[in-house]
Amino acid sequence: MQPTDDPLVTEVGVFVAFEGGEGSGKSTQSHLLATWVESQGKTALLTREPGGTGVGAMLRSIVLDPATGDLSPRTEALIYAADKAEHVDTLILPALADGAVVITDRYVDSTLAYQGAGRALHVGELESLARWATADLRPHLTVVLDVDPRIGLGRAGEPDRIEGEPVEFHERVRQHFLDLAAADPAHYVVLDASESPEAIHDRVVAAVGPWLAQARGVEA
Amino acid sequence: MQPTDDPLVTEVGVFVAFEGGEGSGKSTQSHLLATWVESQGKTALLTREPGGTGVGAMLRSIVLDPATGDLSPRTEALIYAADKAEHVDTLILPALADGAVVITDRYVDSTLAYQGAGRALHVGELESLARWATADLRPHLTVVLDVDPRIGLGRAGEPDRIEGEPVEFHERVRQHFLDLAAADPAHYVVLDASESPEAIHDRVVAAVGPWLAQARGVEA
Repeated sequence: MQPTDDPLVTEVGVFVAFEGGEGSGKSTQSHLLATWVESQGKTALLTREPGGTGVGAMLRSIVLDPATGDLSPRTEALIYAADKAEHVDTLILPALADGAVVITDRYVDSTLAYQGAGRALHVGELESLARWATADLRPHLTVVLDVDPRIGLGRAGEPDRIEGEPVEFHERVRQHFLDLAAADPAHYVVLDASESPEAIHDRVVAAVGPWLAQARGVEA
Repeated sequence: MQPTDDPLVTEVGVFVAFEGGEGSGKSTQSHLLATWVESQGKTALLTREPGGTGVGAMLRSIVLDPATGDLSPRTEALIYAADKAEHVDTLILPALADGAVVITDRYVDSTLAYQGAGRALHVGELESLARWATADLRPHLTVVLDVDPRIGLGRAGEPDRIEGEPVEFHERVRQHFLDLAAADPAHYVVLDASESPEAIHDRVVAAVGPWLAQARGVEA
C-alpha cells in the first residue's frame, strides 16, 4: 500500500474510493476523511456514484423514476456506465490533474458487486463496460468497509429497491468486495465496519496518510 | 439477399433498417415501406433511433438539452448505447418474436458512421459497445440511401448540431455506410437517393419482398 512506483494513471492527486454494503458507514467515513484531508492543508473533493455530476443526477432520476418501469438489464448497466464516464471525465480526472484528494462514496466495485450479485448480466461484461467508461482509471486506494449484512441492513432504515433484496443477495455483494480486495492487496484495505466510527476513521487515516504527499497543498 | 439459411437471431419477423446521411429520404421511405407491408396483410412496426422508446426519449433529451453542455464523448456514446439496449430489448425483439416486420429509421450503422466520423472515439470500441447493447441483433436487411452530402444537406433545411458539421465530415459518414454495405452484400442494398421517392420505393419493395414470407399475417 505504499505510493512508490505506482503504475496508475495520474502522477498527481490521490484517488480514494469507499466501498461496502448498506449501512457500512461509507458516507460517514468519506466525510470524516475529507475533513481530515483539509486539516492537513490539502484540497479534498468529496463525491459519489451514481449521480455525482449534473448529467449523472439526470441519469439516476431516469433509473429511479417509477414511471420508467422495469429497464432492460443492459439499459440499466449502460446508464450507470454513462454516469461513470461523465463522473470520471468531467469531475474526477480534472480534480486529480489539479492535485486534489478525490474521495468517492462508491465506484466501479459497487457496480460489479451489486449488478454481478443480481446475476442478470455476466460480471466480466460488466467489468469491461465499467473499465471502458472510466478509461480504466482506478483508485490509488479502495477502502472496503466490511459488515455482516444482517447488521448493516438493520442500520440502513427503510429499505429501497436494492436494500429490499434478500440477505443472500447482500452476502454475495459482501463476498464480491472481499474477493476484489484479496486480489489486489496493494490497492485495497478492508476494515471491520462494526468498530466505532472514530476507530475506523483512525484506520482510514493510517491507510490514506502515506499517499498524501503526492497531493497538492492549498495555496495560501 | 435471399432469406434462406440465414443465421440471424430471430426465426420469425423481419428486421429492416434504413441508413443514410441527412436529407437522404429515410423517413419518407420507412413510412412508405410500412404502408406497403400492411397492404400485404402483415404487421409493421415503424420506429427510430435515437428515441424510439420512452426511456430513449428521456435519454435523447439529456443529450440535446442545451443545459447539459458538452458531454464527454464516452458519456454520449454510452447514453446512445443505453437507448439502443432499451429499443432492442423492449420494442424490437418482442415485435420480431410476434412475427412483425420491424422498420427502423437508423440503427447501429448510424452510430458507427457518425460517431466514427467524429473521430473522438475508436470505431472498433464503438462497435463493441453497440453490439453489446443490442445483444448483437442485426437487421435481416439494411437499406442504405446514398446521396451526395452537398445535395442531401440542401434538402434537410435548418442545420442542427450534426448537420452543421463541415462537408468533409458528411463525406466520411457517407463512405462509412458504403464500406459497411460492401463488406456484407447479403444483408445490404445501396440505393441512389437522388431518384424519385416512388422509384426508390419500388426498389425497396423489390429488396424487402423476398423476406416477407417469414412475417406473420395480421389476424382477421
